[in-house]
Amino acid sequence: MTDQHPDLDALRAANPDHWRRATAIRALTLDAVAAANSGHSGMPMGMADVATVLFEKHLKFDASRPEWPDRDRFVLSVGHGSMLLYSLLHLTGYPEMTLDQIRNFRQLGSITAGHPEYGHAPGIEVTTGPLGQGIANSVGMAIAEEILRERYGRKIVDHYTWVMAGDGCLMEGVSQEAITLAGHLELSHLIVMWDDNGITIDGKVSLSDSTDQKQRFKAANWDVIEVDGHDPVAIDAALTDAKKGKKPTMVACKTHIALGSSAQDTSKGHGALTDEKVIADTKRAYGWDQAPFEIPADLKAEWEAIGARGSEARAEWEVRFADLGQGKRGEFERTLRGDPARKLSATIKAMKRQLAESQPKVATRKSSEMVLEVVNPIMQETVGGSADLTGSNNTLTEGMGIFSAENRAGRYIYYGIREHGMAAALNGLALHGGIRPYGGTFFCFTDYARPAMRLSALMGVPVTYVMTHDSIGLGEDGPTHQPVEHLAICRATPNTNVFRPCDTVETAEAWELALTSARTPSVLALTRQGVPTLRTTFSNKNLVAQGAYTLADTTEGKRLVILMATGSEVEIAMKARDILQADGIGTRVVSMPCWELFEAQDEQYRKKILPPGPVRVAVEAGARMGWDRWLFGERGKRDKGAFVGMEGFGASAPSDELFEHFGITAEAVVKAARAML
Amino acid sequence: MTDQHPDLDALRAANPDHWRRATAIRALTLDAVAAANSGHSGMPMGMADVATVLFEKHLKFDASRPEWPDRDRFVLSVGHGSMLLYSLLHLTGYPEMTLDQIRNFRQLGSITAGHPEYGHAPGIEVTTGPLGQGIANSVGMAIAEEILRERYGRKIVDHYTWVMAGDGCLMEGVSQEAITLAGHLELSHLIVMWDDNGITIDGKVSLSDSTDQKQRFKAANWDVIEVDGHDPVAIDAALTDAKKGKKPTMVACKTHIALGSSAQDTSKGHGALTDEKVIADTKRAYGWDQAPFEIPADLKAEWEAIGARGSEARAEWEVRFADLGQGKRGEFERTLRGDPARKLSATIKAMKRQLAESQPKVATRKSSEMVLEVVNPIMQETVGGSADLTGSNNTLTEGMGIFSAENRAGRYIYYGIREHGMAAALNGLALHGGIRPYGGTFFCFTDYARPAMRLSALMGVPVTYVMTHDSIGLGEDGPTHQPVEHLAICRATPNTNVFRPCDTVETAEAWELALTSARTPSVLALTRQGVPTLRTTFSNKNLVAQGAYTLADTTEGKRLVILMATGSEVEIAMKARDILQADGIGTRVVSMPCWELFEAQDEQYRKKILPPGPVRVAVEAGARMGWDRWLFGERGKRDKGAFVGMEGFGASAPSDELFEHFGITAEAVVKAARAML
Repeated sequence: MTDQHPDLDALRAANPDHWRRATAIRALTLDAVAAANSGHSGMPMGMADVATVLFEKHLKFDASRPEWPDRDRFVLSVGHGSMLLYSLLHLTGYPEMTLDQIRNFRQLGSITAGHPEYGHAPGIEVTTGPLGQGIANSVGMAIAEEILRERYGRKIVDHYTWVMAGDGCLMEGVSQEAITLAGHLELSHLIVMWDDNGITIDGKVSLSDSTDQKQRFKAANWDVIEVDGHDPVAIDAALTDAKKGKKPTMVACKTHIALGSSAQDTSKGHGALTDEKVIADTKRAYGWDQAPFEIPADLKAEWEAIGARGSEARAEWEVRFADLGQGKRGEFERTLRGDPARKLSATIKAMKRQLAESQPKVATRKSSEMVLEVVNPIMQETVGGSADLTGSNNTLTEGMGIFSAENRAGRYIYYGIREHGMAAALNGLALHGGIRPYGGTFFCFTDYARPAMRLSALMGVPVTYVMTHDSIGLGEDGPTHQPVEHLAICRATPNTNVFRPCDTVETAEAWELALTSARTPSVLALTRQGVPTLRTTFSNKNLVAQGAYTLADTTEGKRLVILMATGSEVEIAMKARDILQADGIGTRVVSMPCWELFEAQDEQYRKKILPPGPVRVAVEAGARMGWDRWLFGERGKRDKGAFVGMEGFGASAPSDELFEHFGITAEAVVKAARAML
Repeated sequence: MTDQHPDLDALRAANPDHWRRATAIRALTLDAVAAANSGHSGMPMGMADVATVLFEKHLKFDASRPEWPDRDRFVLSVGHGSMLLYSLLHLTGYPEMTLDQIRNFRQLGSITAGHPEYGHAPGIEVTTGPLGQGIANSVGMAIAEEILRERYGRKIVDHYTWVMAGDGCLMEGVSQEAITLAGHLELSHLIVMWDDNGITIDGKVSLSDSTDQKQRFKAANWDVIEVDGHDPVAIDAALTDAKKGKKPTMVACKTHIALGSSAQDTSKGHGALTDEKVIADTKRAYGWDQAPFEIPADLKAEWEAIGARGSEARAEWEVRFADLGQGKRGEFERTLRGDPARKLSATIKAMKRQLAESQPKVATRKSSEMVLEVVNPIMQETVGGSADLTGSNNTLTEGMGIFSAENRAGRYIYYGIREHGMAAALNGLALHGGIRPYGGTFFCFTDYARPAMRLSALMGVPVTYVMTHDSIGLGEDGPTHQPVEHLAICRATPNTNVFRPCDTVETAEAWELALTSARTPSVLALTRQGVPTLRTTFSNKNLVAQGAYTLADTTEGKRLVILMATGSEVEIAMKARDILQADGIGTRVVSMPCWELFEAQDEQYRKKILPPGPVRVAVEAGARMGWDRWLFGERGKRDKGAFVGMEGFGASAPSDELFEHFGITAEAVVKAARAML
């Protein structure tokens, strides 16, 4: 039936009330896209029936309290269909989603951006648009729900994550990482509604894909249900069934993109329908005769009743929540706000005090583990994991427990060889609330995780990426595994704090900042190889918070040289300083563990740390890109600067030999400084 | 049977000659890893039987002529098992893979890097290590074979692509993009041998995955065969069957990682077995009593006979090739060498001459299409495609034909929504030889393609990435689709030419450079929005080849200002210059379409273009990262500089409004210049 041109009159006649409600979505979509003269009409037109049934009969929400923690999450993975979401939020009565906002679709300053942007308005659970991300974020959301349900009980946490995904989402590789992880973990509260419309931008899906999606999901341990995506009764039954399974469920919704328009079932229908006649004809076919943006009052009231459908459940939940013990309630609220544990600061300080004594020589990945060992016990909201490099990333600490289908109390996730899926899941864990996630892989595989890491930054979610093996210092694995440009990549990305600590003390301070961050993700670039403790004096203050600071200064005479370094190269800078100072050349070493935080300091502080006058040498086992800013860009006076680092890709050899081979040594730093004096 | 501890004596007794040959691989692996004190022993030990049968009975190759164009391609997607490949190359007699190289496994300067590095030695068809890449590269190789087979006939091109992939490869999302594309295209000459050993670094696969891989591949339109990976007779039968199918075939090889050692079937066995006793015990279990690195002469002779097995077929092929018409032979050889068509230079010049007349105002993505329209007809080796954005990337030109299961003559590929899979396939197309591939997506989705783009650069394959919608200039789609940091990302990557042309003339020159590049991939960052022709005077020389050049100079008086810009912002710089010049402020505009090529010029040229003295303003609708180098880093004198560009993410609004909103305007440039004068 659904392969033929559907009979709209018959559909309307069969379920007139439903039809009218769904048509409101379609009409608002047509009007908003026409007004913006851009956007995507076809997906909301095709999935309006499924969305209507979902919101009317299944989604647990209360439009007046979008932040209700036990609401169902609705993820529009197919983000270009943003007007579907905006229409639903407007119709059901989310206060901020006014008709004016709909009218200003895709305009500067409106909350109705081209793709849903997290933070623009309540009800937008996640930023989507880059395909495949939403479905992968939803895995993290569903994991968060399982963990918190286990911790607080079904009376407090018991909700579903509903995802709308398109062919694009399912073609993206990250979707495979997501669904295999979800299937393995048996995330039964995760339901994906696949908009099976057979169309992509280039034409029919059959131009580029022949995948049996249903078989594919079954192979990933999912339940699969098929449904006619324009039959509200069938949809209702399918969504009802979907909630019953013990596995995640994929509901394949056979739909017609741009339903009822002349562009139906074509790639033209995927984009913006802006032709006046097409719009008029389509509305006529719907039996819709309202003026643009006009929703009849009774219909709006129907929709608002749907928006209020969950208010009773929400009120009951509040009573149950009030009945929780004060301790649990406080913990729930604190972790939902994202506040760190009260003990965190004191714990880090105690650790630093101890480190000033013990002065370990360890890899900073090991330092990171030492921090996690004291932090994880006092912050139950941390959920860690690694993309199959647990023993290398040092991300698992005692007592966390492994999260699995059998153990929902576990706080550590074996993500498998799925860096991208992991990063997207971390976003979902953070977005859900109540969880502060971190995940590890090799720094070089930032490349795989990139699309999701960018979204952490864009959404402003405080995920922590534990990126070990952060330079040629990893040695024999060679150039495929040796990051060179990755510090530049992360630093070029807005709203991302990139920490490259030089020792255990800086690692502890970096972790403290990561764990207290409210709206900025953190990347910890950590060594494979051992480094000495360089901050040998206890400091009450978190010096990494200033981004850069003077680690060692000129002891006598004029300051002629400033050496700037991060991570494992701070040790090299310190050795170079020893040589220079021995020759009577006054030398300061500035450790720069976080450029972004240094940039955020006032000019006075920056000038204090990097005063004009001395020649500057930067040393970092990575690409030069970005260093000129600190070598030259902030000067008030003519000075000279040089960079000691990588010019190309690395090589396969023992670490020490590589530093020699690529000339990243104290001697090279000394030579560069001398050449300018 | 294979789930139990295998009886090595029984295996040996059943096929003693095979066993001895396979053991040579295992012994060399153990010895090399022990000598390096690092590496991965388990995979070569587990897959030695499959590899032995493959090389002995199926792989078409001639060790004495590794570059024979019609050889089968062997792709070790599971790159950490590099000793498997090195052992095979050594044993079969590839001249460069000497025993000394094996002894120097993972040492500086050896060709036996930790992971196989393309270019280090003949027989290494591709750089692998980042998991999932090899299987995705192989799709491009198999496409290349289909296209060339169609073009030159079975007598000249008729070979298979054999891939060894592990659980890691199959968990990576890119593998899904690869296998669904391969299945859709019915690449029957592609055979993947899955090392089904049930082990990853973190432990058993069952810790992180429950996927039914066989069902998954079937869902992707593959044939699937299962085999005991230690039974040579069964392996031979399976590989024989694999070649017969009309679809790509996945051979699930049930194996024991680190076979025969105490670490067998454990994650410990995945890594380096270096304990002397373990090695001795394992060799004893194998019945191997040679000294380290010692291969008995008769056994080496057996292996060398395998290496020479294809020499007759190769000689016959050479006769057939000599029989090809001279034109076809010349074309085959030229494209294999990667030389551009002889007509290319004249064609580009003719186009430039015509552009000086017509001076079109078009988006540079359209300019790119105009170039492809004249280039594709004269260079039959170009194979284009897009990740489902054909009409937006402007990558398809008339007469290319669509490559599909039915049409192997097509030169255009609908890659679907698979940016990562596309980029990896582009690498494979280029690596195969005879093809010069390009592929398009939105510049922002560089993020998805990143892991493969890095490998283009590391391997030095001249892939061209057509990246359109290169800034906030794309408008309403908003920050998820607006690149900000992506120019910095590409520029920070070694051996990558990043072109951001300002008009059609520069686009033509950039394409000429991309199409003549031998060892460097090119990224073309192209606008969505229209830009005027700014190079209005015909130049015989390719000015983009110098990286940066003076587009317009001070007309009278002293040169006080230099404006540097790329792409769509060159127009802004030109407008700013008009304003400044009108005020008597001498101003030069430097167009910098390719930083890398500018950096490669001698200092004299660089100083000529960017002389000390004038204040400098850089304008680019992207992140500042990297610009300080040109603002300050190359000066001999104290000067001032400013950057006009993006500080954070973009927004959703019409393009013109965004440039205003983010202050990327001629007025802002003028203001920045004035402030420094």
